[in-house]
Amino acid sequence: MRIGVLTSGGDCPGLNAVIRSVVHRAVADHGDEVIGFHDGWRGLLDCDYRPLDLDAVNGILARGGTILGSSRVQPAHLRGGVEQARGHVKDLGLDAIIPIGGEGTLKAAHLLSEAGLPIVGVPKTIDNDIASTDVTFGFDTAVGVATEALDRLKTTAESHQRVLIVEVMGRHTGWIALHSGMAAGAHAIVVPERPFDIDELTELVGKRFSAGKKFAIVVVAEGAKPREGSMEFNVGKTDQYGHERFAGVASQLAIELEERLGKEARPVILGHVQRGGTPTAYDRVLATRFGWHAVEAAHRGEFGMMTALRGTNIEMVPLASAVEELKTVPAARYGEAECVL
Amino acid sequence: MRIGVLTSGGDCPGLNAVIRSVVHRAVADHGDEVIGFHDGWRGLLDCDYRPLDLDAVNGILARGGTILGSSRVQPAHLRGGVEQARGHVKDLGLDAIIPIGGEGTLKAAHLLSEAGLPIVGVPKTIDNDIASTDVTFGFDTAVGVATEALDRLKTTAESHQRVLIVEVMGRHTGWIALHSGMAAGAHAIVVPERPFDIDELTELVGKRFSAGKKFAIVVVAEGAKPREGSMEFNVGKTDQYGHERFAGVASQLAIELEERLGKEARPVILGHVQRGGTPTAYDRVLATRFGWHAVEAAHRGEFGMMTALRGTNIEMVPLASAVEELKTVPAARYGEAECVL
Amino acid sequence: MRIGVLTSGGDCPGLNAVIRSVVHRAVADHGDEVIGFHDGWRGLLDCDYRPLDLDAVNGILARGGTILGSSRVQPAHLRGGVEQARGHVKDLGLDAIIPIGGEGTLKAAHLLSEAGLPIVGVPKTIDNDIASTDVTFGFDTAVGVATEALDRLKTTAESHQRVLIVEVMGRHTGWIALHSGMAAGAHAIVVPERPFDIDELTELVGKRFSAGKKFAIVVVAEGAKPREGSMEFNVGKTDQYGHERFAGVASQLAIELEERLGKEARPVILGHVQRGGTPTAYDRVLATRFGWHAVEAAHRGEFGMMTALRGTNIEMVPLASAVEELKTVPAARYGEAECVL
Amino acid sequence: MRIGVLTSGGDCPGLNAVIRSVVHRAVADHGDEVIGFHDGWRGLLDCDYRPLDLDAVNGILARGGTILGSSRVQPAHLRGGVEQARGHVKDLGLDAIIPIGGEGTLKAAHLLSEAGLPIVGVPKTIDNDIASTDVTFGFDTAVGVATEALDRLKTTAESHQRVLIVEVMGRHTGWIALHSGMAAGAHAIVVPERPFDIDELTELVGKRFSAGKKFAIVVVAEGAKPREGSMEFNVGKTDQYGHERFAGVASQLAIELEERLGKEARPVILGHVQRGGTPTAYDRVLATRFGWHAVEAAHRGEFGMMTALRGTNIEMVPLASAVEELKTVPAARYGEAECVL
Repeated sequence: MRIGVLTSGGDCPGLNAVIRSVVHRAVADHGDEVIGFHDGWRGLLDCDYRPLDLDAVNGILARGGTILGSSRVQPAHLRGGVEQARGHVKDLGLDAIIPIGGEGTLKAAHLLSEAGLPIVGVPKTIDNDIASTDVTFGFDTAVGVATEALDRLKTTAESHQRVLIVEVMGRHTGWIALHSGMAAGAHAIVVPERPFDIDELTELVGKRFSAGKKFAIVVVAEGAKPREGSMEFNVGKTDQYGHERFAGVASQLAIELEERLGKEARPVILGHVQRGGTPTAYDRVLATRFGWHAVEAAHRGEFGMMTALRGTNIEMVPLASAVEELKTVPAARYGEAECVL
Repeated sequence: MRIGVLTSGGDCPGLNAVIRSVVHRAVADHGDEVIGFHDGWRGLLDCDYRPLDLDAVNGILARGGTILGSSRVQPAHLRGGVEQARGHVKDLGLDAIIPIGGEGTLKAAHLLSEAGLPIVGVPKTIDNDIASTDVTFGFDTAVGVATEALDRLKTTAESHQRVLIVEVMGRHTGWIALHSGMAAGAHAIVVPERPFDIDELTELVGKRFSAGKKFAIVVVAEGAKPREGSMEFNVGKTDQYGHERFAGVASQLAIELEERLGKEARPVILGHVQRGGTPTAYDRVLATRFGWHAVEAAHRGEFGMMTALRGTNIEMVPLASAVEELKTVPAARYGEAECVL
Repeated sequence: MRIGVLTSGGDCPGLNAVIRSVVHRAVADHGDEVIGFHDGWRGLLDCDYRPLDLDAVNGILARGGTILGSSRVQPAHLRGGVEQARGHVKDLGLDAIIPIGGEGTLKAAHLLSEAGLPIVGVPKTIDNDIASTDVTFGFDTAVGVATEALDRLKTTAESHQRVLIVEVMGRHTGWIALHSGMAAGAHAIVVPERPFDIDELTELVGKRFSAGKKFAIVVVAEGAKPREGSMEFNVGKTDQYGHERFAGVASQLAIELEERLGKEARPVILGHVQRGGTPTAYDRVLATRFGWHAVEAAHRGEFGMMTALRGTNIEMVPLASAVEELKTVPAARYGEAECVL
Repeated sequence: MRIGVLTSGGDCPGLNAVIRSVVHRAVADHGDEVIGFHDGWRGLLDCDYRPLDLDAVNGILARGGTILGSSRVQPAHLRGGVEQARGHVKDLGLDAIIPIGGEGTLKAAHLLSEAGLPIVGVPKTIDNDIASTDVTFGFDTAVGVATEALDRLKTTAESHQRVLIVEVMGRHTGWIALHSGMAAGAHAIVVPERPFDIDELTELVGKRFSAGKKFAIVVVAEGAKPREGSMEFNVGKTDQYGHERFAGVASQLAIELEERLGKEARPVILGHVQRGGTPTAYDRVLATRFGWHAVEAAHRGEFGMMTALRGTNIEMVPLASAVEELKTVPAARYGEAECVL
């Protein structure tokens, strides 16, 4: 069999583990040939690739990033992209393509699959918001990094007698905020799924101070927004240079809470550190299993599917189901955390 | 409601997180009273306990060990133990008891439950071998610690051109060996579920050297044993002092492999470091959820049950089902790792 | 002997280790009595303190923050502050006061010492900018945290093909920037000691891209500033709300470099995470030695001095010398890093 | 200039950082040519090497091990070794050789230097026992790994109410034992420099239990021995298979202390995990500075010298002075730790 693999979208701990696993299973066990496209779909569209043998994936299991590079190019966005992809797959004699990527990538994969290409997807996102799989690799690492930061911030918030508003990743869902907030014992967790009421948040934090506590940690997902009319809020506000990137929810919350509580409040934006570097053991195992099962699915001819964790098993689920809607945090989970607004 | 909580058996990262969660949910949300028995069942039998309010569990979420202490005392092993427990539960006016423990503890819990005591169990074991739950807290931390050690050992094995035989925990099951071995890219994994053939192991490792590699990492669970007749093996062999503890499988394998391969082989026994210290974010979240749901079950009057992770949900399962048999590594998982003997 | 100890100024990993060491040495070895003032000098001025025995410092060695609390109150800033302090020292029968703090604290300590109080200082700053000591505790932890973040950011910068401008602590000196930048292999390091020329920085980073590299990491100390006239720069610029805190050097550099290089550039501000949490082994040892030697100095009657690391020895140096000027990064160190502007 | 570099002896975190730094400074700044010999002196004797350009050292700064490989081959041990080395240096047109290694390697370097070869040494040992330099790289990482393990073991010792005897590296000196023991708050530290009296050790640990504590941690350097006549002790005792490696001081101490104290005592041997894996920031900076200064010394023609840390400066010291005697822990340091026997 001849298999092409590619990584697409943002960085995510575990990408290399999947690539390695695909190569190990395909080359060492099945005697397949594997090629890796450079920079995601761009490599497929430009026929830019390199062969991947066992040596090529030596020592990459624990390494962050992706040896194949990535990009945000999507075939469907390019005129004739699908046809071009189909042509190259034929020219290269590929029996299967394994794209590893997030929501956008899986949508493209689904589209190419509908167009008849032999696709087996592997879902990837630190945000954990892909439906049909219990968990995606990268999420555990992101939560771990955020938790470690929160552990450190707690002692410093206490020493400075401050409110720290810690912004973690999660544009559309609050998974990282919920898990890192629970793991670190945050005093309030603000998620995109539930627009927050600034009065309620102020009260929640304020009660801590009334009870004699000297600090508070608020974890907020970057995509969180106030309830309509709750407070003035600048969504995607651009700065004087036309950049919209430097005025996130944590900064706005810090200003608001400081004024309302009369306590020093400071934003901390964890940022990209959550999506780089060596994956946790959990993510390495999950990524390795995904790679292994993707190869198996290809050999069984199960195309148009992607790998998914269900309980402790890896199962194949239709790409279609995965891209229908985001997996948001169910309401039942908020109760467990006690402090989700 | 009046709830008693206790921790029993070996150390396990996440115990304090469960205790804290029980107290938070019961005291802060339900207005319950919680007491903590000292040193596991011993505290219940001796009526040795202390009240647990919110202050008592402040700052313990990320701390290893257990603030309540532990022991291996089991009520059923003591004459009149069950009656004594029942008497104290009555005297103390307890509406529920939440024992947090491993197989032995859950068996005792089941027994007390059968005897009519209001028990809600919380399973605990770094070995991950309790049936009816996908995962137990403590396991992820143990795997993480083992993986970090393996990552470090890899560079040193390579530099010394050696075979390292790394013994990880797992008396009856190979979960830690499998996951840490997969996460670190071990070259052979030896588990208790499959008695190993020393010839096969020698061949597997030898092939690496034949292929020009300069080192190998073998991960072996402490409970692994050779196939009958495969090699001389001293199970529970005692040393000159009558202690049986210092001659484990890794040491015996190192000697055997060194002789067979003609390569330096060294044992590394990771030991207790796998079961102490701060829990990973994963384990803290799981432990917190277990504690929360145990309190809820108590309030619903669901006794004789224990908390369990099923997919992404926490469910209540009968204690009886949990203690029937160990959850061993299913054969399908060996294939994924490629190098399980 | 009766000794008072206090921690003053910003959070710094190792404070608890000093407190513990003072108590261990004084109480256990010398049979002294130790009291701890709450919230730094404020506790001394308000006579707010608690006794510190061995139990009081149990388990705090590895914990971040300070069990005594801290504040930025300085006796000299308060009318009659010095007299008040003197009075309380007399009333409490203190034979020695051991303030643990940074530049401001040591200045206050010097002043009180000049006024006749029996002071033995212990220097503390993550910035490492106190003269007369080779290193201060807290610095190694801060560098470690920053380096770990940089390690992670590297893979993500590479994957996204970006320039990341990472802002680390260091208002007046570039020690953290220099060490973390060297440790992580940053491609440019910008320090307060040398106002940077934006053209030179652009060229340095640009050369990397010309050479075919796909990303760059710039480490910049928060206190770095451009050379006069080199680029428009808003020092302490306030935002629309009158807060000056959210527009640091990294953000301004990101905008400038993006425009000049035509490459995506993003700021990452590590922030408070550098000064909280468990100290490294290095910092724990240094802090413990400082505490031990401070007690010894008190017993020898060596007042007006502070502990200092010189080579591998702890020596006592005059407080006066420590507060004369900041310890900046010497020019010879820039050359070693190759990429300091 | 043409420079040869090699790494010799046991694994040590930071080796790759030195290699990278040598190449960066020599190639990028001086326009030199650098070659790397494989497997230490063996590579020089066999003329087995490869060119090292900037690409060859890309991404290795944070990686454990050595890309050049290592061995324990010493030229002086081979008949004609020195002449062979001299011949190859001449044939290859080398202007300088930079061996990176421990005591044995530096002795060989000294010998070759005496024989007229242009040598600049870089000292390396996790044991920190090389004279003339305040610290060697690798030591901080080893101490960090040991401390992290001790942190974890503390909670588990407490939970199991045990004495844990933790064996750390240090065949001839107690630096790792002293620093990790101080950093983790061990209750007794046993070092090779001071043969221990088993009665005193028993008393020290016993006092803890008498005072109501429930566990104790003893840190012991692998090279520690009892005082003559203090207890039966098997040095280099071989087991039934003729291997002497599996009966270290920790195991013997555990048996002895258990019998004397009547408390469960268990040995934990940290082993090779202390010398592998990614170096700490501290070690990366020190290693990088050593590499840089070694190249500078070569360019100044300062041969027969090695790099050394003195305070905060890197200085060149005669190889001769470095190999005269081991740097043992000075007695003054024991007092600071309070619990060194």
